[in-house]
Amino acid sequence: MPDTADVSGAPVALDAMGGDHAPGEIVAGAVQAVREHGVPVVLVGAPRPIHEALARHGATAEIPIIRAEEALAMDEGALASLRRPRSSIAVACHLVRRGDACAVVSAGSTAGVVATGKLRLKGQPGVLRPAIAVALPTRPRPSILLDAGANAEVKPEMLVQFAHLGAAYAETALGITGPRIGLLTIGSEPGKGNKLVKRAHELLSAAPGLDFAGNVEGHDLLTGAVDVIVADGFTGNVALKTMEGSVRYAFAELRETIQESRTARLGGLLQRRRIMELRRRLDPEAYGGAVLLGLNGTVVIAHGASQAPGVSAACELAAALAHRGVVARIGERIGHAHRPHRLW
Amino acid sequence: MPDTADVSGAPVALDAMGGDHAPGEIVAGAVQAVREHGVPVVLVGAPRPIHEALARHGATAEIPIIRAEEALAMDEGALASLRRPRSSIAVACHLVRRGDACAVVSAGSTAGVVATGKLRLKGQPGVLRPAIAVALPTRPRPSILLDAGANAEVKPEMLVQFAHLGAAYAETALGITGPRIGLLTIGSEPGKGNKLVKRAHELLSAAPGLDFAGNVEGHDLLTGAVDVIVADGFTGNVALKTMEGSVRYAFAELRETIQESRTARLGGLLQRRRIMELRRRLDPEAYGGAVLLGLNGTVVIAHGASQAPGVSAACELAAALAHRGVVARIGERIGHAHRPHRLW
Repeated sequence: MPDTADVSGAPVALDAMGGDHAPGEIVAGAVQAVREHGVPVVLVGAPRPIHEALARHGATAEIPIIRAEEALAMDEGALASLRRPRSSIAVACHLVRRGDACAVVSAGSTAGVVATGKLRLKGQPGVLRPAIAVALPTRPRPSILLDAGANAEVKPEMLVQFAHLGAAYAETALGITGPRIGLLTIGSEPGKGNKLVKRAHELLSAAPGLDFAGNVEGHDLLTGAVDVIVADGFTGNVALKTMEGSVRYAFAELRETIQESRTARLGGLLQRRRIMELRRRLDPEAYGGAVLLGLNGTVVIAHGASQAPGVSAACELAAALAHRGVVARIGERIGHAHRPHRLW
Repeated sequence: MPDTADVSGAPVALDAMGGDHAPGEIVAGAVQAVREHGVPVVLVGAPRPIHEALARHGATAEIPIIRAEEALAMDEGALASLRRPRSSIAVACHLVRRGDACAVVSAGSTAGVVATGKLRLKGQPGVLRPAIAVALPTRPRPSILLDAGANAEVKPEMLVQFAHLGAAYAETALGITGPRIGLLTIGSEPGKGNKLVKRAHELLSAAPGLDFAGNVEGHDLLTGAVDVIVADGFTGNVALKTMEGSVRYAFAELRETIQESRTARLGGLLQRRRIMELRRRLDPEAYGGAVLLGLNGTVVIAHGASQAPGVSAACELAAALAHRGVVARIGERIGHAHRPHRLW
């Protein structure tokens, strides 16, 4: 896998200007990634504020800065990526194209990062549509859900490709051999769902190189029933946000319940630290971010509200995916599945 | 509203044969509904086992039995409703048609209840598709989510009707005046989503008689941001099951966290009762069940695993909807929105 060797020493290109807490928390996350996890990072953006933030950590000599004159605002969407060829995220993508970085990490707006990534890195040969993958906090190991929002409208063939993208993620980042694939729908029997998933079920059942385990439902999302959960970007995004909102809701209700009674309150104090730890583990930031799969380069989209630990986790995830050759792995899977029939 | 007057004294027709714990827990739920909540009930199904179960509660004189020779099994789907015209759920529907019952309650298979309800009670005039509505445990009052699974494939016009169905539910069962409607999608701006919701957004914005509050996302499901959340049955079902699974997951993780440490365990014991209460409140059964809206009669589908309290709650909900005239209210709303242009 030549792609792996190419990037093995290259740093992660971290967009210092994207995210609600940029550049302060982004820079802090870079420092954490470098010092605590040994992940090499370059910061991309406006040099002065980045330098000042690095100075606060005494890290100006440890992390290089690559100048980018512009930045995408958090409320700017896909079109801005065309208008701003020198944005920090565009420059970060350029570093990956040139081989000067192994991967891109940004906490900028998802729409902006997706559009810029597609424009600057281009889709891998044979990939119909790049997709966003997230790792869900299942145990003993995460399940990968995709597409989590890049494609609101898809065709059944794309869902089969998403299965390959997710399988490559599971194989490289999580070290899972022969990941099991599930199709998100509204009943466990093969005939259940809308037209899209019924057809996708047929295609997945016949697809070589995929261990298709059949349909999964919403309540299977967090049980670890399968390693990869495939959905169109509309359903996947609704499911992901519903999951995040429901976990948040359960904890809020719990806090209120505990505060209501004096004995319960005492109990609550005794277990406060444990519950804080649990909340942190279930925090979307802890997953390391969403990964845009199917481009000629690895792009990790950290949560917009990311603070230093979330940014650091995203850099670790990006480095792991890049160094273990997720792009090459996708190339093998999609190339294998979609190789044109040879006439000679 | 003549429909209201017609049914005011009529009992709820409770399918004694549907559900994982039928007839024992169903009969126990009937006894609870009658004795504790003053809801009149008739039990429909095989007389002997129902009579025996009633006898165990000393309630043979309190609750009438209506004979039905057959029953739909829990794994029987839509087709069985055609094959079994004398099933307990079909007979219960017949009682409503004749005016001998105000509403149907069944804990049988959703597909079977939906198909039988549509076949025996027929859709209300002007209603394109009946939809399944559930009340989510938001505070201070529930939000209604629909369609939760009756229609995997819908058209934008149907989503507008679902808004009316949900509004009628909120007005009658929850006493909400001018319920606020949200459209479930993947971004808060009007242009976000797939083709279906983009078009539905336009139609809802222009629809008379609806207080349309715009798009809502998955994480808004439990915040009570709106009173009625509209979705196609595929997305709505995935969201509902994801929500249930996520809440269950959060509690399971919490239990494990509490058991891991001794201090935390002590704390856990002190608040055990409170947490049990909370879990009960978030239990889907506690919502009273899903309501099939848009038919010429009220049909409540209790959870398949319902025990006595869930069955009793479903009977209360069915009686409230029927006695407050949800069918007539839907007729007014849909009739008003879809009245044909008169030429004379």
